[in-house]
Amino acid sequence: MYNWRKNVRRVVPYLPGEQPDQVGMIKLNTNENPYPPAPGVLKALKKFDSDLLRLYPDPSAAVLVKVLAEYYRVKPSQVFVGVGSDDVLAMAFLTFFNSDRQILFPDITYAFYNVWAEEFRIPYRQIPLNEYFQIVPEDYFCENGGVIFPNPNAPTGKEMSLSDIERVIWHNPDAVVIIDEAYVDFGAKTALPLLEKYDNLLVVQTFSKSRAMAGMRIGFCIGNEKLISYLNDVKYSFNSYTMNRLTLALGVEAVKDDEYFKKITNRIIETREWAKKELEQLGFVFEDSKANFIFASYKTVPAKKIYQALKKQHIYVRYFEKPRIDNYLRITVGTREEMGKMFEFLKNWLKGAE
Amino acid sequence: MYNWRKNVRRVVPYLPGEQPDQVGMIKLNTNENPYPPAPGVLKALKKFDSDLLRLYPDPSAAVLVKVLAEYYRVKPSQVFVGVGSDDVLAMAFLTFFNSDRQILFPDITYAFYNVWAEEFRIPYRQIPLNEYFQIVPEDYFCENGGVIFPNPNAPTGKEMSLSDIERVIWHNPDAVVIIDEAYVDFGAKTALPLLEKYDNLLVVQTFSKSRAMAGMRIGFCIGNEKLISYLNDVKYSFNSYTMNRLTLALGVEAVKDDEYFKKITNRIIETREWAKKELEQLGFVFEDSKANFIFASYKTVPAKKIYQALKKQHIYVRYFEKPRIDNYLRITVGTREEMGKMFEFLKNWLKGAE
Repeated sequence: MYNWRKNVRRVVPYLPGEQPDQVGMIKLNTNENPYPPAPGVLKALKKFDSDLLRLYPDPSAAVLVKVLAEYYRVKPSQVFVGVGSDDVLAMAFLTFFNSDRQILFPDITYAFYNVWAEEFRIPYRQIPLNEYFQIVPEDYFCENGGVIFPNPNAPTGKEMSLSDIERVIWHNPDAVVIIDEAYVDFGAKTALPLLEKYDNLLVVQTFSKSRAMAGMRIGFCIGNEKLISYLNDVKYSFNSYTMNRLTLALGVEAVKDDEYFKKITNRIIETREWAKKELEQLGFVFEDSKANFIFASYKTVPAKKIYQALKKQHIYVRYFEKPRIDNYLRITVGTREEMGKMFEFLKNWLKGAE
Repeated sequence: MYNWRKNVRRVVPYLPGEQPDQVGMIKLNTNENPYPPAPGVLKALKKFDSDLLRLYPDPSAAVLVKVLAEYYRVKPSQVFVGVGSDDVLAMAFLTFFNSDRQILFPDITYAFYNVWAEEFRIPYRQIPLNEYFQIVPEDYFCENGGVIFPNPNAPTGKEMSLSDIERVIWHNPDAVVIIDEAYVDFGAKTALPLLEKYDNLLVVQTFSKSRAMAGMRIGFCIGNEKLISYLNDVKYSFNSYTMNRLTLALGVEAVKDDEYFKKITNRIIETREWAKKELEQLGFVFEDSKANFIFASYKTVPAKKIYQALKKQHIYVRYFEKPRIDNYLRITVGTREEMGKMFEFLKNWLKGAE
């Protein structure tokens, strides 16, 4: 049986964070936004003509590409959209990391990079962050088949300065450098202005965090027209119609309401800065985060134990059983109320656990 | 400039059918359903709680997998869903066609197969249909890295008998055989019953045609649990969250309303059989179609000329400028009214064009 098995591509898949679904739970484990999408999204949903669903969507996703181009002040031909930034990144790996040379990314970073590299048989090398969990630009000044890292980095939340990012791009004219800005809207600087100077830069963003639409699956990237054109060729050779009609209609509304976007983003930043103080008082240590999560460690109680204790209270945070980071918790910034409840529990529980 | 270009995966992308969007047009070019989705789909849309869109969807798409498993009387572990059957097929190519041996498919068939093979660097051989546009089973009784063909075939609409399909599967125990049943609900026999006997069979279907939801992007496949498990591993290594929350909610409703599904499907079949008679009277020739389209040729006027004349009337049909089929039109079966308008125009126009 299963004679065909020798032809099969065998991979160890990425394990997404658990998606518990309990009434009253506090979900701080997958970096979702604690606020609903922009009110215009709801309106567009209610007035959507469902008869249109019988027809294919526009494969070029032109309406969504257009509002994004306007918002970020680039040409529509510089914008590519996909089913979440994971789809955009998968397509970018397939398109741009197609040489025999190793691609480079940090050892502590988004756990999907090495999964894509394995899936597409792309040679890769993971470069250790320094002891302060920083990406060292000079480590990327060597021959390679491409470079990718998030800014801020995940799950550390640490920002890399724009001048350091520019040095990495400048030193790699023969490769595409992808900056994964999933969390950039929470206070870090975007690399988008560098597009005017570099044709080898691709900036990837998502609607899943700052735009509160993880459930809708929208990601995008912006780059030189030539890059985007190659990316589209590969995408059209994979699946012409990725963005469904509702996704297009609702995505447009999310971009249009900039006031709401800034309001909820600022609220999350405020909650984060307050949460940092609370965590400090509780005795946690952490590097400064510019994302919608904090990556924290407690001196005298193992992270795994805290994670399990929180889980019993139906408070979900993310714990990675991996070298160098297995004593850290990645805590998504929820509402002030949600964070408050967690801190209250920890205050009492930590005393008994030490 | 563009030093990075040598690293790029260069492909000639699939060209999807044009998606004109004009008031009053008659759109018979991309095999969409002329009827709206099931009424339950509209209801689910109106009552959907848009606040939920801030949360990631269930990566396993369990609710949709469950209703499909129930409907087709298989285990949920035998069902895989994706962003249209193109997504399902792309993942299946990546997963199962991973050897150095050539995969086999017909010369006249869905134009995406060779695009995926090129994109993923899969060796392939296209086997000519016989003079009656039939797939000859014996042609596939040879060493290969996998077999794929649609049933009914596209764009011919011709059905292959289940016994012939079984012979192909039986002769290929060392390879996965994919039957692409995008159009099967319009009167052909599904290969699903063969799953009990063969672990190397994968049956792919879609919501885009018979379930009137091309705009929502839902495809699925059913196979042996082991096949589906490998497919999931590759999918989870590509994009964990492909099916968004609305797609899941609306897709479930489309499957639940079997009465509506059968009603619109039967109506399309009736219109097709009537349209065949009308086409015959007009002087068209065509092989028998079991799909929601008819692949027809006219003796004395070139297909391209007819295609262009129809286009001027805002009646869109599909024309392929390809060897062997460049004198055929693929006409989607629309409503009786839409077909009637086309026939009326052709009746007068063909007289003058001959």
